[in-house]
Amino acid sequence: MPVTRQNSPAPYPQLTDLEPLAPWRPALSRALHRNHSQPFARYFQLATVKPDRTPANRTVVFRGFLANTNHLMMISDRRSQKTDQIHQNPNAEACWYFTKTREQFRLAGALTLITADTTDSDLRQARQQLWQSISDNARIQFAWPQPKAPRNQDDDESDNTDAFNPPPPNEKTPLDTFCLLLLTPHSVDYLSLRGDPQTRKLYRQVNQTWQTTSVNP
Amino acid sequence: MPVTRQNSPAPYPQLTDLEPLAPWRPALSRALHRNHSQPFARYFQLATVKPDRTPANRTVVFRGFLANTNHLMMISDRRSQKTDQIHQNPNAEACWYFTKTREQFRLAGALTLITADTTDSDLRQARQQLWQSISDNARIQFAWPQPKAPRNQDDDESDNTDAFNPPPPNEKTPLDTFCLLLLTPHSVDYLSLRGDPQTRKLYRQVNQTWQTTSVNP
Repeated sequence: MPVTRQNSPAPYPQLTDLEPLAPWRPALSRALHRNHSQPFARYFQLATVKPDRTPANRTVVFRGFLANTNHLMMISDRRSQKTDQIHQNPNAEACWYFTKTREQFRLAGALTLITADTTDSDLRQARQQLWQSISDNARIQFAWPQPKAPRNQDDDESDNTDAFNPPPPNEKTPLDTFCLLLLTPHSVDYLSLRGDPQTRKLYRQVNQTWQTTSVNP
Repeated sequence: MPVTRQNSPAPYPQLTDLEPLAPWRPALSRALHRNHSQPFARYFQLATVKPDRTPANRTVVFRGFLANTNHLMMISDRRSQKTDQIHQNPNAEACWYFTKTREQFRLAGALTLITADTTDSDLRQARQQLWQSISDNARIQFAWPQPKAPRNQDDDESDNTDAFNPPPPNEKTPLDTFCLLLLTPHSVDYLSLRGDPQTRKLYRQVNQTWQTTSVNP
């Protein structure tokens, strides 16, 4: 588990042979299953803190759990602002709202960025497998011009030299801009708005052990 | 406009007779209109920063704009953790994803809490009008037991003395727990995932004037 701390990069997660399933995982699996008909049920909002102590919040796509762990996988562009933010303050909270079943999961934890420079072989492999599993369309975005730089209208010409229409990257080897982003939750707030009254549970990890409390909604 | 600052409560917004419509408002109105068939299109995720510099992130309901302003209205329970967080650090970022049209608005700004103690008469009136406009079901939640306190199973008995089934509050006069929460954006990041390539615009308020830049997605 990465320790939650500030002003230093998060250490790599310790990959044990098999991490026990966290107690909030069955409720999350059920929600994913019941909302499966909506592709956007796999999107959530990820909040981080910028160096000036203001929050940042953006929509990301859930890419499954890292094998045998409770770490949520996402992908990120190394050139994006959030990769800088994570180095300074790895703390994050994901807010995941399932519209069909009216359930909310708030997953607070630490982020770890797995890049081309990561040395751990399991994590290198996980990054590579994720690259291979995403679509050409998703891969090509990592070859686009610098995110959030001023748009050059010349880039938008629709010929093959178009900056936003580069040749598809090699599907075996990730581009250097491609990162695997891991969220390791240490507390989860689950709220179900269905039911009268609503139900809410807090899960908190204390000394490697998850504690569960039923609280008022 | 509230000035964005830390460690002190946000000042009340200055209500001018008529604030000019911010340049991101038409795009947001269009998104609300086009996603109107989905009730959850009015929900967004609001990120704040806790005193320990970790982020908090939760789903809230958009309650329209404060009349003649660009301030987004939400409701909040005075007993919730976010009201404490706001006093210490009023900075927030709303992430609003429209699933049908695949558009994302990230609205960064300052929060202001309008409570029973607020003296400004326009803001007092806005709080009261909002209370009167919400459903009985929404109002009754402000009479529920302390949010996030350990759940007392005795509260769940289904008789009229049930703590989660109090008599409906007076629909004219807000309960003291009821707050109007305002978000005053100072910068907005608009991303449309439709179109090839995607389009992204940044709106930033500098010296009371909004500046718009087209940037790479």
